[in-house]
Amino acid sequence: MTAELALIAALRRLATHPGARGLDDDCAVIEFGEEALVLTHDMMAEGVHFLSGQDPADLAWKLVATNLSDLAAKGAEPVGVLLGYTLGRDDVRFLEGLGEALAHYGAPLLGGDTVRAQGPRALGLTAIGRATHRPVPSRSGASVGDGLYLTGAVGAAMLGFEALRGGSGDSLAYRRPRALLAEGQALAPHVSAMMDVSDGLLLDAARIARASGATLAIDRAAVPVAAPEARRDEALRWGDDYQLLFTAPAAAGLPIEAHRIGEVRPGSAVPLLLDGLPLTEADGLGYEHR
Amino acid sequence: MTAELALIAALRRLATHPGARGLDDDCAVIEFGEEALVLTHDMMAEGVHFLSGQDPADLAWKLVATNLSDLAAKGAEPVGVLLGYTLGRDDVRFLEGLGEALAHYGAPLLGGDTVRAQGPRALGLTAIGRATHRPVPSRSGASVGDGLYLTGAVGAAMLGFEALRGGSGDSLAYRRPRALLAEGQALAPHVSAMMDVSDGLLLDAARIARASGATLAIDRAAVPVAAPEARRDEALRWGDDYQLLFTAPAAAGLPIEAHRIGEVRPGSAVPLLLDGLPLTEADGLGYEHR
Repeated sequence: MTAELALIAALRRLATHPGARGLDDDCAVIEFGEEALVLTHDMMAEGVHFLSGQDPADLAWKLVATNLSDLAAKGAEPVGVLLGYTLGRDDVRFLEGLGEALAHYGAPLLGGDTVRAQGPRALGLTAIGRATHRPVPSRSGASVGDGLYLTGAVGAAMLGFEALRGGSGDSLAYRRPRALLAEGQALAPHVSAMMDVSDGLLLDAARIARASGATLAIDRAAVPVAAPEARRDEALRWGDDYQLLFTAPAAAGLPIEAHRIGEVRPGSAVPLLLDGLPLTEADGLGYEHR
Repeated sequence: MTAELALIAALRRLATHPGARGLDDDCAVIEFGEEALVLTHDMMAEGVHFLSGQDPADLAWKLVATNLSDLAAKGAEPVGVLLGYTLGRDDVRFLEGLGEALAHYGAPLLGGDTVRAQGPRALGLTAIGRATHRPVPSRSGASVGDGLYLTGAVGAAMLGFEALRGGSGDSLAYRRPRALLAEGQALAPHVSAMMDVSDGLLLDAARIARASGATLAIDRAAVPVAAPEARRDEALRWGDDYQLLFTAPAAAGLPIEAHRIGEVRPGSAVPLLLDGLPLTEADGLGYEHR
């Protein structure tokens, strides 16, 4: 994977705009006409981000929700989306799910492109948002003494994925994640750092820690988990739940209910302390994008 | 292809925002913070939009240039791009071409996503622009009596494609098209309708005619063609040259050199008259997207 990592690093270096956040990173934030434009583009590939047999309506929903979740973490409201769609099987069903998701989130389809191609499909969506609060929350603002918070439980998508793969049980949390747009907008004025948990709580917490030059101390038992207790450690590393993870001054009155799961400590060689034990990316914190 | 056309029509109906232009159409234009944001997303698929053996640096260049050409037709200046990239062969070479194109056009990479997927590749790019003149030119403003103009010759990309496929000769025009950003910005205050010629001069002219409720009368001999005279009719139907096609009041002083190739006449059942002979889409005017 070294060549790929080098490529991604090189692509990041191409991202020279001050508001750019690079590839595989969170949104770009651009000053535009007295407002802040928030931009993100995420892809989903067959066999990587979804199973080949999945309902195309669910894929469309997830493609929209995951991109809008990136906007949520910036406290942005959606302006609209552009779709890059490879025509294939069950296009009409895809369209139904797309229409449902766009109507649910009030995000119009602004345009896009369709192509006919063979082989496994890759779907792409660009989401355009308008920041509702400035400064726009980023990963890098966590301050020593801030609390670390999570909007809800992790682990539900893990169980949902297993149900879908196994062919029985409730897979909704995996198939139809929610983008917490209202929550992100409510939180934006109160947080010092924020992101959505897409790749695993521990991995995404480590990203906030690295970006902020801080260490995040997490109380393992305080993390709400929607899975059997025996699977707590897995749930902390599974992505796809799209909860918002944020830091805020301890005294801040938060506008919505959130779970305090730890606190921000001075930076050190390790990004995370889990019940006091140091953890780094080498310990396997979540899903690393390739 | 009926099912696909129905799908695309259905996707267009999802595009409910007043500024949206639908899929496979030109840019969306959105009012944003006192300015007009211009958005486009185009894909290129292996085996459809490019040959499997092509230099990835050329693919990257063309992906950037074709999207920025859409901005050019709106008189927009690029704010930046987001890339959806399927990791594959020769990623480093792709990156070189991407860097060249972005530097050439002064368009920063704002973000994007990479995925690893098998099979033929699909590349996607979202280009974000800022309109430099309002109203933003569209396809629909052509008025009876306006002249019809083209910024330069068509046919060069056709010859370039044949050279590339045949393995000898100059293929540059096909591999490295130019986005006429400066020309588009200069023209925007003067035109009544404008688009870039991506799918063939006659087909794109018919689109302006349909959108404007007009008929465009084209003087076949007046069209500048960069191909042997015997191939004039083919050149009028080949895309990929990315010249700007526009209408403007006859008396308007144009800020740049352009070739007058016809005029706007009252709408009728046919969109085009070529040397007085009626032509419709059924006659095969260019490359129809699928």
